Amino acid sequence: MVQKFGGTSVGSTERIKRMAERVMQEKNKGHDVVVVVSAMGKTTDALVRLVSEITSEPSKREMDMLLSTGEQVTISLLTMALQQHGVEAISFTGWQAGIRTDSILGNAHIQAIETGRIKNELNIGRVVVVAGFQGITGDGDISTLGRGGSDITAAALASALKADRCDIYTDVDGVYTSDPRFVPKASKIPSLSYEEMQNLASMGAGVLHPRAVKHAKKHGIPIYIKSSFEKGRGTMIHGRANQNGSTPVIGVTFEADINRLEIFDCNDIEGFQEALMCELASHHIQADVYKQSCRDSLSLLIKEQDLQEVLSILDKEKEKWMYSRIERKGGLSKVSVIGQNIKSQPAIKIDMCKILLENAVRVKLVGESAISVTAVVEKRQVQLAAESLHTGFGLDYEAVMKASV
Amino acid sequence: MVQKFGGTSVGSTERIKRMAERVMQEKNKGHDVVVVVSAMGKTTDALVRLVSEITSEPSKREMDMLLSTGEQVTISLLTMALQQHGVEAISFTGWQAGIRTDSILGNAHIQAIETGRIKNELNIGRVVVVAGFQGITGDGDISTLGRGGSDITAAALASALKADRCDIYTDVDGVYTSDPRFVPKASKIPSLSYEEMQNLASMGAGVLHPRAVKHAKKHGIPIYIKSSFEKGRGTMIHGRANQNGSTPVIGVTFEADINRLEIFDCNDIEGFQEALMCELASHHIQADVYKQSCRDSLSLLIKEQDLQEVLSILDKEKEKWMYSRIERKGGLSKVSVIGQNIKSQPAIKIDMCKILLENAVRVKLVGESAISVTAVVEKRQVQLAAESLHTGFGLDYEAVMKASV
Repeated sequence: MVQKFGGTSVGSTERIKRMAERVMQEKNKGHDVVVVVSAMGKTTDALVRLVSEITSEPSKREMDMLLSTGEQVTISLLTMALQQHGVEAISFTGWQAGIRTDSILGNAHIQAIETGRIKNELNIGRVVVVAGFQGITGDGDISTLGRGGSDITAAALASALKADRCDIYTDVDGVYTSDPRFVPKASKIPSLSYEEMQNLASMGAGVLHPRAVKHAKKHGIPIYIKSSFEKGRGTMIHGRANQNGSTPVIGVTFEADINRLEIFDCNDIEGFQEALMCELASHHIQADVYKQSCRDSLSLLIKEQDLQEVLSILDKEKEKWMYSRIERKGGLSKVSVIGQNIKSQPAIKIDMCKILLENAVRVKLVGESAISVTAVVEKRQVQLAAESLHTGFGLDYEAVMKASV
Repeated sequence: MVQKFGGTSVGSTERIKRMAERVMQEKNKGHDVVVVVSAMGKTTDALVRLVSEITSEPSKREMDMLLSTGEQVTISLLTMALQQHGVEAISFTGWQAGIRTDSILGNAHIQAIETGRIKNELNIGRVVVVAGFQGITGDGDISTLGRGGSDITAAALASALKADRCDIYTDVDGVYTSDPRFVPKASKIPSLSYEEMQNLASMGAGVLHPRAVKHAKKHGIPIYIKSSFEKGRGTMIHGRANQNGSTPVIGVTFEADINRLEIFDCNDIEGFQEALMCELASHHIQADVYKQSCRDSLSLLIKEQDLQEVLSILDKEKEKWMYSRIERKGGLSKVSVIGQNIKSQPAIKIDMCKILLENAVRVKLVGESAISVTAVVEKRQVQLAAESLHTGFGLDYEAVMKASV
């Protein structure tokens, strides 16, 4: 089995020792154990601070070189803690673990895992501790996997090794119907299908990266998300479809810092939309692209941090697509309701607009995909919007408790 | 050319930026530049502190995994600083730079350097920044080179690349006749042959590791040792023999924390001596082994830090060599006078004993090799012994100045 420990669960040597005990328990049950760890939270912060003293525009290759040291510190310390308990263990960096990625530095995707070395160590009874978040490109450069990278490593390893389970220990004790820090009435979801989790994750629920779910789904490996610190049941993600209740909406997600770019008067709007989506995907940039029929324009919703890169991509494409101008609007957020086949149920879009209107949320734009309806709102109204939709679609804790009685 | 910057010269981001300027100057003169760096001093201390919170007996493999992150941080930061100045640069870890070592983790020796990747980058005009102190074993494990490791990396790279020079920037501004922190009258030596430097270094002069000299000597690469912070001439080490003055003694070295192990009644003392020296060498442990004819015993002088490992080696050999017992004496130091072919001049040994006697230093043991005479003294008398010998053999600053007029 694969166990993954995130940044907070390995945030100090004290915690590393506690996690070593948890690994030992699984090992003593007779399991082959592969452990994936993140960097200690403070390590990454300290490294980023050093960079800011040197340059405001670090190259991605050197950032990956730098940040990948964080997990390398954790794997060696956790392995020492295991050895201190008499557990045979060995640490591997991403490249030693055979994790091959593409060349999009800072946000690389795993392409293959050569599991030979890990299997050899498991076969002689060792616990293998692998650095999450990192791999090696075809050119022999160290790459990092971007946000949620260690979860992706864990799920990809579990899949490549055909593990019977992938346990992800994290700060929260499971997947919620919305982010409980902003929507206090959010409730924990005990069990989700891969598709439902992917839908939640791809729309911004931070618990698990959609690529992590994709890797697990490939070989049907169950992912169990639970708290590093508290006992109790977490959320199991697996291949079985769930019996939904009265509403097909399973969650409300939101992203606070969104820019909207509107591109006017290009000479082939459908062609441009498709080309642009491919180009953004090849840079691993997540964006919503909506065609605005009424204004003959293309709207892009992108994260604040991707703004500069997207603008430079658009600049390069200008000659080909001959658009006249780009309007940028910042200070926006997006709120989405998520559920399987939501597009086939137009009532949901109508309900959503009604709920937001009743709660005096000003909606700037509504877009939809197969699994979500998304409203763009002003940033100052994002929490209000999320809470209203959570209540309106019957996801509040009290309502869920009542329904399950 | 190869430039090496030690721990203090890259101890802060401010200093890293200054070193980047120094690299740029050489690059602008039209040189191909390879830079070798150590870990930032504080980084290593912080890592060692984390280990001490987890275990008192870390495995060597995991220590190397951990400590090698230190140089990886420095290479990425220095490369960023160079790029910030518009200099094309790229960083390489030990394994990326093709530095292949043997498997003696914690104290590995470089066996070969595959320079292909470095040469490719130099050919397209980039500065190559290489992590010192580290390499990769045949099994694909990260290894570290032990004390003075980054100097060894620099000299080995300079040799493998047939560089025209290897500049080593360090805390001190050159090689001295003795350690100026303890022997205030020590004087700087402007120029030394490889053999003289090896002799000084192998007897404990900390400035440059003897293995670094050995690598440079192989292809006749001049090594220039100079201060990271001050201008002025340093010490040049090269293939030309020096014109020595009146005395063949070029320096006085000492090591403060020495243990003496005396082994009694083994069944073949010459055979044991030879076998033991081979065994210690294969563990990369430096030791003086003297046969004590009068007591029919073998004396080992070893460093405090090697004590446990040497005892366990001796324990394994006990059955074969049938020695009766080992006496250990700590709290000792050794002081050596160094010079070419010193053994062929018995007067030096006599002079040494006389000088120490006149200064009331109690000598426990005297041993000699081709290039040195060594006296073992009590630790509390080591500074007195070193200063007396330094003066007695005419190495004091005033005497050197007078002789050179």
